[in-house]
Amino acid sequence: MEETEAPEPFARLSTWIPNEAPPEGQRAALLRLAAAMRKITEGLMDMDAPEADLIAAAEASERFAEHLEATRTGRRSWGFGETSPSGDTRALFDHSPLLGMANPVAPPLKLWVEGDAVAGTAVFGKQYEGPPGHVHGGLVAAAFDEALGMVQAMTGQPGMTGTLTVRYRRPTPLHIEVRFRARVERVDGRKIFASGTLHAGETLCAEAEGVFIMTDYGRFRVEPDRPAGKG
Amino acid sequence: MEETEAPEPFARLSTWIPNEAPPEGQRAALLRLAAAMRKITEGLMDMDAPEADLIAAAEASERFAEHLEATRTGRRSWGFGETSPSGDTRALFDHSPLLGMANPVAPPLKLWVEGDAVAGTAVFGKQYEGPPGHVHGGLVAAAFDEALGMVQAMTGQPGMTGTLTVRYRRPTPLHIEVRFRARVERVDGRKIFASGTLHAGETLCAEAEGVFIMTDYGRFRVEPDRPAGKG
Repeated sequence: MEETEAPEPFARLSTWIPNEAPPEGQRAALLRLAAAMRKITEGLMDMDAPEADLIAAAEASERFAEHLEATRTGRRSWGFGETSPSGDTRALFDHSPLLGMANPVAPPLKLWVEGDAVAGTAVFGKQYEGPPGHVHGGLVAAAFDEALGMVQAMTGQPGMTGTLTVRYRRPTPLHIEVRFRARVERVDGRKIFASGTLHAGETLCAEAEGVFIMTDYGRFRVEPDRPAGKG
Repeated sequence: MEETEAPEPFARLSTWIPNEAPPEGQRAALLRLAAAMRKITEGLMDMDAPEADLIAAAEASERFAEHLEATRTGRRSWGFGETSPSGDTRALFDHSPLLGMANPVAPPLKLWVEGDAVAGTAVFGKQYEGPPGHVHGGLVAAAFDEALGMVQAMTGQPGMTGTLTVRYRRPTPLHIEVRFRARVERVDGRKIFASGTLHAGETLCAEAEGVFIMTDYGRFRVEPDRPAGKG
């Protein structure tokens, strides 16, 4: 992607952008841990491990959670939780619940810019199942919100989702790579109209429309949203 | 909730309903592990643990994921991934990506029946963040899909989501209990129209409408959707 300066509307956002990326080694370890937790999560959807093994894993996990809590910094996360407000496709999205490589709840969805569109892929594991063998419709909607949110941010006037409409055409299969595509249809005053599709192979699984409203992100407070850790 | 017989349209669904609930001890351990993994996940959103600790946790997690994989049964999960197709509010939803107490990616959302409506609550942690301090809009949409899906199933003619529309009124805060409410507006042929609201305190954060299409769930295959484990 192009290394251009962020346009003027994002000036205030710079307060959210950390001056330094996380340490490479620590970040790499974090991403490895998140990937392993995704595997455990999918494994838990169908397993017959003995109770004692699950208890041992739970105890170890509880101890590690406490350890993490003690290292809490209270500063803003690296990067952004979602693409829409960043206005900068160079930003790290490690923590997004959809894109976040460092977030075990993220599939993760992968999105990138192709010309004036956003393209993306995801492989949804069994932890995202709704109808048997297929992706939960709610997760399809969530992924569309992210894809449309990214493409509307490319207008240089990023907004928050005003209305999201998803039309489900066919059930979306688990375990195979499915493809998202999103584009901006038009901009009308403070409203940005975006649309998107989701395909599995040649099958159109779902379509979406989003109306985004240009937002003054300065109204979001930038101080820590929870007390700092005890460590 | 009432212990009535499932109505006729659900007869075919009985093939998905296991004859026995999971062992109480194993299930309790599973839920405890899932809860601990949620804590780790939220902890990972803001931490400064040393690289070595993260690597050790990743290695332990990778080993445990392999162990789980070796115990894979290949049979259908207990319960359903989402409420819509179950047609039975007694079903276990341990594995739902929204409701699932056994699914670490689930917040979890809690839903219950109140008269002819569905009510629910959730506390979204930092792993669901979109705009700073607030819930990612995609997760709001996902939760609505689940709440509307449950209320439309109460008609006795459960359907799959045809169209979901979410209107975002105010950003939804993280870390506090937010409240969902859903009801059926009308049934028209094979279409069920449902609506819902999301409040934080007195603030209306979002509204949703869903059109559900009565579905022959028999078209979903009931055999395992992945090869059985090697264990």
